[in-house]
Amino acid sequence: MASEHGERYSVDVPLRWSDMDAYGHVNNVQFLRLLEDARVIGFQEWFGQERSMLDQGVLVARHEIEYLAPLEFRHAPIAVDMWATRISGASFDLAYEVRDPAAVGDTLYARAETTLVLYSFVDGTPRRLSEVERATLKSHEGAPVPFRWRRR
Amino acid sequence: MASEHGERYSVDVPLRWSDMDAYGHVNNVQFLRLLEDARVIGFQEWFGQERSMLDQGVLVARHEIEYLAPLEFRHAPIAVDMWATRISGASFDLAYEVRDPAAVGDTLYARAETTLVLYSFVDGTPRRLSEVERATLKSHEGAPVPFRWRRR
Amino acid sequence: MASEHGERYSVDVPLRWSDMDAYGHVNNVQFLRLLEDARVIGFQEWFGQERSMLDQGVLVARHEIEYLAPLEFRHAPIAVDMWATRISGASFDLAYEVRDPAAVGDTLYARAETTLVLYSFVDGTPRRLSEVERATLKSHEGAPVPFRWRRR
Amino acid sequence: MASEHGERYSVDVPLRWSDMDAYGHVNNVQFLRLLEDARVIGFQEWFGQERSMLDQGVLVARHEIEYLAPLEFRHAPIAVDMWATRISGASFDLAYEVRDPAAVGDTLYARAETTLVLYSFVDGTPRRLSEVERATLKSHEGAPVPFRWRRR
Repeated sequence: MASEHGERYSVDVPLRWSDMDAYGHVNNVQFLRLLEDARVIGFQEWFGQERSMLDQGVLVARHEIEYLAPLEFRHAPIAVDMWATRISGASFDLAYEVRDPAAVGDTLYARAETTLVLYSFVDGTPRRLSEVERATLKSHEGAPVPFRWRRR
Repeated sequence: MASEHGERYSVDVPLRWSDMDAYGHVNNVQFLRLLEDARVIGFQEWFGQERSMLDQGVLVARHEIEYLAPLEFRHAPIAVDMWATRISGASFDLAYEVRDPAAVGDTLYARAETTLVLYSFVDGTPRRLSEVERATLKSHEGAPVPFRWRRR
Repeated sequence: MASEHGERYSVDVPLRWSDMDAYGHVNNVQFLRLLEDARVIGFQEWFGQERSMLDQGVLVARHEIEYLAPLEFRHAPIAVDMWATRISGASFDLAYEVRDPAAVGDTLYARAETTLVLYSFVDGTPRRLSEVERATLKSHEGAPVPFRWRRR
Repeated sequence: MASEHGERYSVDVPLRWSDMDAYGHVNNVQFLRLLEDARVIGFQEWFGQERSMLDQGVLVARHEIEYLAPLEFRHAPIAVDMWATRISGASFDLAYEVRDPAAVGDTLYARAETTLVLYSFVDGTPRRLSEVERATLKSHEGAPVPFRWRRR
């Protein structure tokens, strides 16, 4: 769908009732679980089923997340926009926005960014992005995440 | 225990076998769960059982975490060092290092920081740190987290 | 869909990659989580959104589950068949089969049964099934679960 | 500690704040997670660290659990009594009671039983109990679980 960052890729991620904690909201840690779900779904579409980047191997080196609004369980999936914000030889940053699907509302619940390091599980060593992987990420590149709380 | 940041507060956090994912390591999202555990244990000791900061209310506004070494399940608890890195009127930053207990080894598994915003669940509004809470946090204040991956 | 138990009700329940444990299979405890998901989805359809049985209140009094085949993470949802096996004044038993969707295969992964006790969260007391609730459950009544391991 | 079943083996299992669900009680599914924790801790003590039954391989074939009282998060661990109720050539049943530690109270929260099937992960086949394993289980044998809800 169109946005200020251009054509954004978006994944529908189903919630579970158990994502809520004793406060009755989706727990802050579970947001990271939803982002994991979004990556698993999104990377299959970006990189293909046969040679999944997740199977090949990619390690999470870093997460940063800001919570903007409380989210309660609902039956409809949540939308997670995903785009690349940095692409280097052997790692890249993936940005996300967790928000209502367009048909449901316009609340933005969280912004986040994950640094992923390429890894070969077969060889047990870091590896470099292939040309195809780099081109795929380039086609999903977007603006930096406008974090509000990060200290400079 | 003594460290470059002065007298650091440290919590023993038990792992669960289920913290491991299909890769056989403690899952990156579960690290945030371990930090939640550390806060629950630590805040009871810092702020007292009767009037727990967590019950009173505190909201997670932000997490940042870097993964430094893979962690496998073990029966012994992991050590989580906790200290305050920023104390303002109505929020504060809490830093953590997840590491081997001194008797076990010296591996550092993760560094993280959480921004917590004070909240009154009774009134449903943000609130300010009390003098006692501020003094408690001051007594646990320490150096900034030396994040390696954060972009400037 | 038609079956030996008559017209069975079936829910599609999405898996999460994190449902797998260190053995690389969906963890046995997570199967109960999938059944919780199935109840949340199914009860909304059976009892209606406005006056959900789960909100009104229902307590889990008992679970019994048998594992028949290992389940690995897949992108497609799993099918959970759900039917009532006992309906009394203030409680009922809900049976489940966790299986491949018809289009995917014919593996049966687990059979289970949950005893649910009606409860009024407003009054803090047990309550009786309403006529409408009883009629709804009757329309989903089916054969007993053919447990293989239960000792007599 | 002494009991009607003779000398019962008991494990202290720490709770996590996140074990609570939106109702503010330890979620029924998380009880199974606590039992998994109890097995991991208990089997290490029963069968030894070097050649853990869990690593060797054991598969969960069945769970049955009854919930007797609501459990809220507390900082002190919960006590899980564990004993064998059936020992055959290639499988056994493990019974549990989840209760307050003696120093805290005398509430019984849940009774449960798990059927475990021996498995050799190396060979990928079922296997039989060794003499040492059988003797260990025999030394922890006890009375059947007095389930109240199980239908005859």
